[in-house]
Amino acid sequence: VICAKGIEDGTLSLMSEVLEAELPGQPRAVLSGPTFAVEVARGQPAAVTLAAHDSRLGERLAGAIGSRSFRPYLSDDVVGAQIGGAVKNVIAIACGIVDGRALGENARAALITRGLAEISRLAMAKGARAETLTGLSGLGDLTLTCVGSGSRNHSLGVELGRGRAIREVLAGRRSVAEGVFSARATVTLAERLNVEMPIAQAVDAVVNREAEIATTIDDLLARPLKSE
Amino acid sequence: VICAKGIEDGTLSLMSEVLEAELPGQPRAVLSGPTFAVEVARGQPAAVTLAAHDSRLGERLAGAIGSRSFRPYLSDDVVGAQIGGAVKNVIAIACGIVDGRALGENARAALITRGLAEISRLAMAKGARAETLTGLSGLGDLTLTCVGSGSRNHSLGVELGRGRAIREVLAGRRSVAEGVFSARATVTLAERLNVEMPIAQAVDAVVNREAEIATTIDDLLARPLKSE
Repeated sequence: VICAKGIEDGTLSLMSEVLEAELPGQPRAVLSGPTFAVEVARGQPAAVTLAAHDSRLGERLAGAIGSRSFRPYLSDDVVGAQIGGAVKNVIAIACGIVDGRALGENARAALITRGLAEISRLAMAKGARAETLTGLSGLGDLTLTCVGSGSRNHSLGVELGRGRAIREVLAGRRSVAEGVFSARATVTLAERLNVEMPIAQAVDAVVNREAEIATTIDDLLARPLKSE
Repeated sequence: VICAKGIEDGTLSLMSEVLEAELPGQPRAVLSGPTFAVEVARGQPAAVTLAAHDSRLGERLAGAIGSRSFRPYLSDDVVGAQIGGAVKNVIAIACGIVDGRALGENARAALITRGLAEISRLAMAKGARAETLTGLSGLGDLTLTCVGSGSRNHSLGVELGRGRAIREVLAGRRSVAEGVFSARATVTLAERLNVEMPIAQAVDAVVNREAEIATTIDDLLARPLKSE
């Protein structure tokens, strides 16, 4: 059961693709969803996506790990269940920047919505189904990470939004803000698949290429208006 | 341009249906999305859905009301653009209850996700497209209302979650918590359209039929596990 999240640097593989390359032909499943570990450990209610190609494997696992307070929802979309967790941290940095600059809750809600739209485009280009991204591993995890008080990536964004330099912020931290690495991998994968991801590109520019935040936001807001 | 949100008591009509009954054949559009008014008034960035059957009308309106900080995204799904705004307050009360009982951020994220799933089912039964509900008028507005600090419906739920009785909470308020009325209209419409909305039903039971909160939450958590 894959619980790790991310896109492998260099190969741009999802964790299921890494597993298939290392242990070909083994049965596998993906567990992902909005789950701050400390709350799960306390027995507070949580719901997750459990994805497996083999539906009997999925049901067996759900029976083994599910409980009244930890509720797995089954899916067969192994790819879709991985994309949300891999890219959410990038959008969370963007939401942190918006919060750090005090741009308001409307702006943050719009960013979460448009962020999910670009995550879904990437997922569908990788063969996922749209409804997986509006589920617990997509929207659920994204919402938690973008507004939850315990997200390292969001707090990194807040510090950037308040005007601190990225080098300075990273130097002062012991824990990893995965979004910094995920931003580059996401943007590279999106370019390879010809998917437009303006928010991820903006975050990558800010955290990996020292782009100026005010100008980057101006560029995002100046994009032509279009349909949803 | 319809800016009012809700389902008419008794007839269960959306505002576009009310308008069509009162002013038949007039051109119309719907504006909806995550927009706390005070932030818009300050000129902080916001993005909204602007829906019209007539795409030229939509474009003309977008040109008239759009600006650098107020960005309308066009849609032709007039029905879909109304459902999110009509039902979000019901889910916001549920999120407030979860917060008032300190059930955690995982539980709230799951509730937003499963809440959007049931809003989408209702919308599609009314002829809307799924992607409208994952847009600004659906997911965007729902996120803002469920976690935003300025939502009256969320704060009503918080008081209920802390153990105050609904009569007592309503008696102490001057402003309207629309979700109390919307819960009943939503559940009645869902029953008529044969759509399963367990969260809205639970909220309606708590706010309109004095159901006990702890038992109602237990019933929600005891639902059989299923696919996303």
